[in-house]
Amino acid sequence: MGSFVIKLGGSLIFDENGALKAEYLRAFVRLLRDVESRDRKIVVVVGGGAAARSYISVARDVCRNESALDQLGILASRLNASLLFTMYYDLPPVIPSSLEELVRLYHSNLPVIFTGGFQPGQSTTTVSALTAEATKSQLIIATNVDGVYTSDPRRDPNATLLRKVSIDQLLDMFSQPQKAGEYRLFDMMTLQVIKRSKINTVVVNGNPPDNIRRAMEGLSVGTTIVFP
Amino acid sequence: MGSFVIKLGGSLIFDENGALKAEYLRAFVRLLRDVESRDRKIVVVVGGGAAARSYISVARDVCRNESALDQLGILASRLNASLLFTMYYDLPPVIPSSLEELVRLYHSNLPVIFTGGFQPGQSTTTVSALTAEATKSQLIIATNVDGVYTSDPRRDPNATLLRKVSIDQLLDMFSQPQKAGEYRLFDMMTLQVIKRSKINTVVVNGNPPDNIRRAMEGLSVGTTIVFP
Amino acid sequence: MGSFVIKLGGSLIFDENGALKAEYLRAFVRLLRDVESRDRKIVVVVGGGAAARSYISVARDVCRNESALDQLGILASRLNASLLFTMYYDLPPVIPSSLEELVRLYHSNLPVIFTGGFQPGQSTTTVSALTAEATKSQLIIATNVDGVYTSDPRRDPNATLLRKVSIDQLLDMFSQPQKAGEYRLFDMMTLQVIKRSKINTVVVNGNPPDNIRRAMEGLSVGTTIVFP
Amino acid sequence: MGSFVIKLGGSLIFDENGALKAEYLRAFVRLLRDVESRDRKIVVVVGGGAAARSYISVARDVCRNESALDQLGILASRLNASLLFTMYYDLPPVIPSSLEELVRLYHSNLPVIFTGGFQPGQSTTTVSALTAEATKSQLIIATNVDGVYTSDPRRDPNATLLRKVSIDQLLDMFSQPQKAGEYRLFDMMTLQVIKRSKINTVVVNGNPPDNIRRAMEGLSVGTTIVFP
Amino acid sequence: MGSFVIKLGGSLIFDENGALKAEYLRAFVRLLRDVESRDRKIVVVVGGGAAARSYISVARDVCRNESALDQLGILASRLNASLLFTMYYDLPPVIPSSLEELVRLYHSNLPVIFTGGFQPGQSTTTVSALTAEATKSQLIIATNVDGVYTSDPRRDPNATLLRKVSIDQLLDMFSQPQKAGEYRLFDMMTLQVIKRSKINTVVVNGNPPDNIRRAMEGLSVGTTIVFP
Amino acid sequence: MGSFVIKLGGSLIFDENGALKAEYLRAFVRLLRDVESRDRKIVVVVGGGAAARSYISVARDVCRNESALDQLGILASRLNASLLFTMYYDLPPVIPSSLEELVRLYHSNLPVIFTGGFQPGQSTTTVSALTAEATKSQLIIATNVDGVYTSDPRRDPNATLLRKVSIDQLLDMFSQPQKAGEYRLFDMMTLQVIKRSKINTVVVNGNPPDNIRRAMEGLSVGTTIVFP
Repeated sequence: MGSFVIKLGGSLIFDENGALKAEYLRAFVRLLRDVESRDRKIVVVVGGGAAARSYISVARDVCRNESALDQLGILASRLNASLLFTMYYDLPPVIPSSLEELVRLYHSNLPVIFTGGFQPGQSTTTVSALTAEATKSQLIIATNVDGVYTSDPRRDPNATLLRKVSIDQLLDMFSQPQKAGEYRLFDMMTLQVIKRSKINTVVVNGNPPDNIRRAMEGLSVGTTIVFP
Repeated sequence: MGSFVIKLGGSLIFDENGALKAEYLRAFVRLLRDVESRDRKIVVVVGGGAAARSYISVARDVCRNESALDQLGILASRLNASLLFTMYYDLPPVIPSSLEELVRLYHSNLPVIFTGGFQPGQSTTTVSALTAEATKSQLIIATNVDGVYTSDPRRDPNATLLRKVSIDQLLDMFSQPQKAGEYRLFDMMTLQVIKRSKINTVVVNGNPPDNIRRAMEGLSVGTTIVFP
Repeated sequence: MGSFVIKLGGSLIFDENGALKAEYLRAFVRLLRDVESRDRKIVVVVGGGAAARSYISVARDVCRNESALDQLGILASRLNASLLFTMYYDLPPVIPSSLEELVRLYHSNLPVIFTGGFQPGQSTTTVSALTAEATKSQLIIATNVDGVYTSDPRRDPNATLLRKVSIDQLLDMFSQPQKAGEYRLFDMMTLQVIKRSKINTVVVNGNPPDNIRRAMEGLSVGTTIVFP
Repeated sequence: MGSFVIKLGGSLIFDENGALKAEYLRAFVRLLRDVESRDRKIVVVVGGGAAARSYISVARDVCRNESALDQLGILASRLNASLLFTMYYDLPPVIPSSLEELVRLYHSNLPVIFTGGFQPGQSTTTVSALTAEATKSQLIIATNVDGVYTSDPRRDPNATLLRKVSIDQLLDMFSQPQKAGEYRLFDMMTLQVIKRSKINTVVVNGNPPDNIRRAMEGLSVGTTIVFP
Repeated sequence: MGSFVIKLGGSLIFDENGALKAEYLRAFVRLLRDVESRDRKIVVVVGGGAAARSYISVARDVCRNESALDQLGILASRLNASLLFTMYYDLPPVIPSSLEELVRLYHSNLPVIFTGGFQPGQSTTTVSALTAEATKSQLIIATNVDGVYTSDPRRDPNATLLRKVSIDQLLDMFSQPQKAGEYRLFDMMTLQVIKRSKINTVVVNGNPPDNIRRAMEGLSVGTTIVFP
Repeated sequence: MGSFVIKLGGSLIFDENGALKAEYLRAFVRLLRDVESRDRKIVVVVGGGAAARSYISVARDVCRNESALDQLGILASRLNASLLFTMYYDLPPVIPSSLEELVRLYHSNLPVIFTGGFQPGQSTTTVSALTAEATKSQLIIATNVDGVYTSDPRRDPNATLLRKVSIDQLLDMFSQPQKAGEYRLFDMMTLQVIKRSKINTVVVNGNPPDNIRRAMEGLSVGTTIVFP
C-alpha cells in the first residue's frame, strides 16, 4: 500500500459548543495506530475548527486584515495538529509550517506526520491536496457528511449521496458563487490541484473513524473522485 | 521612560466559561496605543489561560509526557499573543518563540512585541522576568488579583494587600510546597530571576487595564517588589 | 501615498529567445529609484518567465510530480528577484521565501523588497495579491498587455481594452475552463483574494515601466478593478 | 534497555587550571562507544565549566546583564558539546540549541546527541532533566562527587553518602537560601521537573566514566532518587 | 565501498547556446540510480554553468559588488541542483545551502544529496572538496575535459593527459597568475583542502557519465591525484 | 565616512597563557564607542585565538576530520564575538553565522555587528574580506604586528615595515609554500577577494586600539594595500 494524506475536518474534533471532542480524538488516534505501518507514511492535515473561528471572530472586531485573520486560523489548526501529535506519540510535537518543511520532515523517521494550515488565503483542504501531490499519496478527506451529494443534504431532502463523482462535475458544482450558509465541501484551488495531478481521492464521514480505515483499504465508503 | 515588559495573565483574557473576553482585549489594545512611544519598547507576554487548559486536559487522557503537555500550553499562549498582535497592528502576527528570537526582534522597528511561552517546565511569568532581565526593562505583572496579599484573599477574609513586599519575603511565601488549588502568583524561578537582576517589578490587577498605565507611570497601584 | 505591491510578469524580463532583457531590467530599476520614498514600502513580486519554463520542461521528461515542477519555477522566480535586488541595491540579495518571512522583512529598514513564488500550486500573481492583502498595499499588476480586454486581443481583432472592470466581471471571465493557449491574465485564487480584501488593483503594461509610475500616482493607465 | 540522558558536569572536563582534560574526554568517548546501541538513544548534556566561567568573569566587568552573561556560559557549553561530538563521530558537530531542536534531532539517525545549555536563567542540569522528561529517558547526573551526601562532604567530615534519597528530601535540602561557596548539586527547577515526571535519576561521580556505565546497567553506584 | 562526492561541472549540463542538455541530465540521473546503494551516501555538487553566467552578466552592468554577483551564481547552481533532485527523486527538492545544513541532511534518510554553491568567493569545486573533507568521502570531479593535462589541451597540441598527478605539482600549476581564457580546472583553495585532508580525488570527463561510475569503482579513467 | 569592517586578530585578545586579556577587550570596546556613528555601520570579525587552539588540539588526538576541527575554531571565534557584543551592548549577543545572515543583520538597527568564522577551510581574515566586499566597506586588519614587513620581523633583524604594499606584491609574498612557524599574515583567498574588489585595506597593530581609530580616520598608521 502506498502513502496517505488524511484531511481531518475541524468540525470532527469540536462539538457544537466549541469544546474539543476528547473521545473522538482518542478513537482517531487508535485508528492511526491500527493502520500505521513501516512501509508507508501517513500525513494528517487538521482543520482549525471552532478554535479558529473563535479567535478570528474576536480579532475581526478591530482587524480588517484578512491575511492576519487567516493566520490566526492557521495557528489554531497547528495547535490542533500538536494535540494529535502529542496524543499519538506521547512526545513533544514537531509540526511543519510550510510544504517545504513538510517535505523535509517526510525524509525523517516519523511514520505519521501531523500538520495544519500553511498560508493565508488557503484552506487546510488545499494543504491536504498539495501535500498528497508533493508526496504522491492518496488523499482521504474526512468530514462531517457522508460524502458528496447532488445538493446540500441539510437543505434538500432529495439530495443523494454520489458514490463516484468526476473531477469536472465537482469543478462545476463548486465554481458557482458562494451564498451564505451554503454547502461548501471544496474550494476551487483544492479541486484544481486534485485534477492536475489526478490524485486518488475519497471523501468520507470521519465519524466513525473506521470509515477512514475502509477508505485506505479501498473498501466501499463515501465518494470517490474519478478522472476522465 | 525606559522599556517595559507586561505579563498579561491568561485569566484576564478568558471568562469563566473559557471564552475569549473580546471587550477586555480591545480595552487592553487601546491602552497599549495610549502608552506606545517612539522612545521605548514594550514587550507583552501573554499566558495560555483557558485555551491552554482545555488542550492539555484532553491530551492528558492518553499522554503522560509533561513536556509535551507544556508545549500545548505554550502553543496556546502564542495563539493568544498572535490575537493581540493582530488586534494591535492590523497585520499578520510575528511572534518570537525563544528568548534568542525575542532579542533579535527587539532590534527591529516594531515598537510593541507580543510573545507567549518559550519552553516546557517554565511559566509565562518566568518568560516575562527573563525578558525584562535580557532587555533591562521594568516588569509589570498584570493578573486577576489586586497584588500580593498576606495570604490567599479567596480563602482568608483577613488577607491584606501589601503595597510593598521584599523579594526575600516573596521567596519565603512561595517556596513552601504547593497544595492543590492554592494561591500561586509566583514560581521560584521567576522570583530568582527578579532577585538576581533586581528587576523593578509591580504586580497589578490587569482589570481595568488602566492599572497597567498607572504602574508604568509610577503611580500608586498594586504591589511593588522592593530589594534590600 | 500608501504602500505598493508590484507584480512584474516574467514575460517582461525575458525576450522571445528566453534571454534576459538587460535594458528593460535597468529601466525598471531606475523607475524604482524614482518612486522610492521614505514614507512607503514597495514590494516587487517577480514571475519565473522563460527560466522557469526551461527548467520545468527538462524535468517534466522524467518527473510527473507537479509540486516538484512548480518548485523549480519558484526557484527560478527567486533567482529573478535576486537579480533585481542586486541591480537595485548593489548588495547581496535578501529574498523572503514565504509570506511569513516577507512580513518579518517588512519590519526591517529595506524600503524595497523583492520576492518570487512562495508555494507550489500558486502563481506569482497570487503571491502579489496575498502580499498586498497582508501589507494593506495597493496592487499593480505589470504584464505584457495593456490591461484587461473584453476578449483575447491576440485572437480577437474586436477585443477592447477596459478602463474599469468589476471584480465580479473578472471572476466570470476567468472561471471558465481554460483552453490551451488561451488568454489567462488571472487565476481564480488571485481574484478571490482581491475580492475579499477589496484590494486597490490596476493592471498595466509594464513596458514602458513608466506605466507603473503612472498607476502609482493614480493617473489614467491600464485597467482598474472596481468593487460594487 | 531504554534511552538515557547523561548530564556531564563541566567540572569533569576541565582541570583546576581551567585546561581541558584531554584524557578524561577520550575515556568518556570510549565509554559512549561501549554503551552505544541501535536500540536506544543517548543524549549527553555538557556543562560550561571553566570556559564558561572565564568568559563570564571578563564580561562582568562592564556588563551587568545576567541574561547576556548566562548566554556566554551557554555558548561555552555548546563549544564543549561540539568538542565531544567531534571526538565521538569524527564529523562536524550538529548541536541543538533548544528543546524543540533537540526533539527534532531525536527523530534523525544519530544514535548519540550532544547538547549544552538552552536558555538564560537555567542550568545545564535543568536542561538534562527537561530532556529526559521530553524523551522519556532515564537521567544520569555525572558530577565530581560520589553522589548526594547528608551535608557538604568538602566541609563536613561526618557527611555520609546516601544510596537512596527521596525527591522530597532533596527539595528540602536545596530549597534553603544559598550561601557563597556552598554545596549545590541541584537547583529547584531541576528537582521540580524530576518530581513532576518521576524521572528515574541516578547521581554518580563521572570519574571514572565507568560509573556511568554502571548506572546505565542498574548496578549499585552513586545515589538513586526515589519517589513516594 | 565508502561515500562519494561528485562535482558535476556546469559545462556538462548546458550546451554552447546556454540551453540545458536534457539528454545528458537524464543519463546522469540513470547513472546515479545504478550506483546508488544502501551502504553509502552520494553528494552531488553542481556548478552554475551558463545560467549563472547569464544572470551575472546582466547584473554586472549596474552592480559592482562581486559578492552579490557570486550570490547570483550560487542561486543558479542551486536551481541546477534542484533540477537534478527533482529528476532523481520525483519529489520536491531539498537543497542544503551551507556546509552546516549539508551535514545535518547527511544524517537523514536521503541516499543521494544534491547541492550547489555555499558562499561568495568560493567555487563549487571548493564546495565539493569541503564536502568530501567533512564527510570523509572520495571526490570525483566531473568536467568537460578528460583529466589534468601537462598544459591547456585547447591551446597546446602537445598537451598530454596525466594519469597521475601529485597534489604539489597541481599547486604549482595553478598558483601562477591567471590569464584571460586560460585553462583553469582548479583554484588554490580547492587544492589546499584536498592536500590538507589527503582527499582521494579523481578528475574525469563527465561525458559519458559512465566515466563517473568507472572512477567510483576504482577503474582506470581520468587523472588521479596522488599524495607524497 | 563610509562603513568599516575590523578584523580583530585572536592574538590580540588572549595573553601568552591562553587567558582572555580583559583590559585590552575593555579598551577596544571603548574605542568602538568613540568611533560609533549613526551614519555608518561597523562589523567586527574576531578570530578564535587561544580558545580555538586549545579545543582543536584536544580534539585532534582522536579526530582527523579537518572540517570538524575547523568548526571548533569557528565556534570559539563566535564565543569571542559574543563576549565583545555583550561588553559593547550590555545585551544578549546576536551573532550571524554566515555571510547571508550577516547581510540580513546589516539591514537591522544595530550600528555595530560582531561575528566570527563562517565556514571550514576559511580563516576569519577571509571572512573579514568577504564581509567588506559584500557591504562595500573599508577593511582594517588589526593584528599583533605593526603592519606588513619585507620579511618576518621575528626572524629577520633587517625586516622593514612597508607603509604601502601593492596587492600583487602581497600575492607574491604569500603564494610561496608555507613552512612551519613561518610569518603568515594573509592567506591566498583573502588576498584574492581584496584584489578582485579593490577593497580599501589597512593592516595595523591592534594594540593600542587607537591605531584602529587612526586607520579609520585615514591617518598614517600600519600598512596600506594599494592597487595598480
